[in-house]
Amino acid sequence: MTYIGELGSGNYVKMVHNGIEYGDMQLIAEAYEVLRTIGGLSNEELAAVFAGWNAGELDSFLIEITARIFTVKDTEGGEGFLVDKILDKTGMKGTGRWTVQEAAERSIAAPTMAAALDTRCLSGLKEERAAASKVLVGPTDLPRVDKAQLIDDVRQALYAAKICSYAQGMNLIREAGKQLGWRIDLGECARIWKGGCIIRAKFLDRIKRAYDRNADLASLLVDPEFAEEINARQPSWRRVVALCAACGIAAPSLSSSLSYLDQYRRPRLPANLTQAQRDFFGAHTFERVDKAGAFHCEWARESTAPEAVLAASGSAGAAAAAGAGAAK
Amino acid sequence: MTYIGELGSGNYVKMVHNGIEYGDMQLIAEAYEVLRTIGGLSNEELAAVFAGWNAGELDSFLIEITARIFTVKDTEGGEGFLVDKILDKTGMKGTGRWTVQEAAERSIAAPTMAAALDTRCLSGLKEERAAASKVLVGPTDLPRVDKAQLIDDVRQALYAAKICSYAQGMNLIREAGKQLGWRIDLGECARIWKGGCIIRAKFLDRIKRAYDRNADLASLLVDPEFAEEINARQPSWRRVVALCAACGIAAPSLSSSLSYLDQYRRPRLPANLTQAQRDFFGAHTFERVDKAGAFHCEWARESTAPEAVLAASGSAGAAAAAGAGAAK
Repeated sequence: MTYIGELGSGNYVKMVHNGIEYGDMQLIAEAYEVLRTIGGLSNEELAAVFAGWNAGELDSFLIEITARIFTVKDTEGGEGFLVDKILDKTGMKGTGRWTVQEAAERSIAAPTMAAALDTRCLSGLKEERAAASKVLVGPTDLPRVDKAQLIDDVRQALYAAKICSYAQGMNLIREAGKQLGWRIDLGECARIWKGGCIIRAKFLDRIKRAYDRNADLASLLVDPEFAEEINARQPSWRRVVALCAACGIAAPSLSSSLSYLDQYRRPRLPANLTQAQRDFFGAHTFERVDKAGAFHCEWARESTAPEAVLAASGSAGAAAAAGAGAAK
Repeated sequence: MTYIGELGSGNYVKMVHNGIEYGDMQLIAEAYEVLRTIGGLSNEELAAVFAGWNAGELDSFLIEITARIFTVKDTEGGEGFLVDKILDKTGMKGTGRWTVQEAAERSIAAPTMAAALDTRCLSGLKEERAAASKVLVGPTDLPRVDKAQLIDDVRQALYAAKICSYAQGMNLIREAGKQLGWRIDLGECARIWKGGCIIRAKFLDRIKRAYDRNADLASLLVDPEFAEEINARQPSWRRVVALCAACGIAAPSLSSSLSYLDQYRRPRLPANLTQAQRDFFGAHTFERVDKAGAFHCEWARESTAPEAVLAASGSAGAAAAAGAGAAK
């Protein structure tokens, strides 16, 4: 037990906890999907893998119950394992939804839990998915993979994505606190989540330590210890995401967490083009990299029409135009 | 001009238009990022490529102004092109945010526009990103790519992701209409967006035709014409997303759209595990694939503890445990 902050802040922190829980569960579901579909792991192997993970840095309640789930035989008298008899339609009670809406409200990117929420929505469309599977194809030949390597890559991807997810959640709590006048100790949030919460994990100690080291940490991602872990796990994480894209296996939380990292660690994003577009069609103005102020350009007047560019262009434009598909 | 539906529905459709616009702009920004960063294209080449795309199936106002933007020299007297002088911090007015919140409210997955919103939030953290770039590393060696192939792959990825994005937007309008008692003609929405809107495009004719063919279409993705286009573009799209993951280039809208497709076209998702977890820790019950009803399992009692699994397991668990990282 602890005192979180001013009136309402305790409920808010509990809400974000549930959003993070959605993310954790979805990351585990994706690990499961990759291991069973691409890796071909049996339930016995999955139980052993998750049990192994639970003995390491992923040690947590959700990993433990996942390991346990894979050991349960069908309790209704059928053959095989119970997990395979469960319909893939997920329910929800609403707190994940609120967290995603709140993140949008506070301008905090929270793609890991948003992807988890989307997945719950899509899982509910069971009949639509069955119909879609008849007209939309996917890759049919799965590559041969080194099973041990895949298991290790997925473990590292899961851990790194989890850091990203918690970074989003903590930043949402901090931003809400800032906007609503709550003084919230983020390290203390992590500490109390160890007591009986669904997301309880050894991992939370490290979050506590990160905020103890620096209470004003801009993001967990830049804490020296977490940054080092993220950096070390990137090759594995990238292999898993790329493999899923190639194989037609959806890994929305693993991949959106990676996109989050790849945006957060980039000093320069393509948002300059977005600002140019906004100034072009809406005169929203833009800032410059080299001097202060708000600038506007008469883009239509200053620019060359595509037709003129094409007429004057060499191979790149011609090739693009040739391959651009007939406009129907 | 057209009559959209009951009071309020016109505003709602305009809001979703703006969410779709966010998605379109972000998809174009990602295409730009891939082409300039991995492909090494100059602004002249980018102008020619987008001009070429504008002469084909991507023909639209946003592609046209993008082509034009790359032709504009610095209007403040500096060297080079104006687009390179624009600060990569994106503003927003709020309608994209509302659309994302509404999608969550109505249980409609809308990851393409959500990724666009997240990107605007992250682009605003310019100083944080600069600091993060000093501690978080990424891949340093970009692969050599065939430029013409890359340009063509990106074009196909952009078009396919656009179909996914519009499918999300149309389904949001339909669901809101259903919940709020509006009778909205989705084909008519697509038609009026051709008149002066930011997202005006030849592409909208095809959406109109899809709903003319079948007003009750579950999703644009299963319209025979769009399904065929999506199927044909998948190899290119997958190559681009996998390449971005490997190279450390964020492509959140391209990749989350692909995840959306890969979930929507799968008759079986790993949501069975999520339901097992929910029943384990919250007794939320689950459905079965083979008989009707709500079921519950006493998971803790029926399952084997991870320690026992590990003690009994062969190589898989031992290997996973050995590589699982020391719990700190």
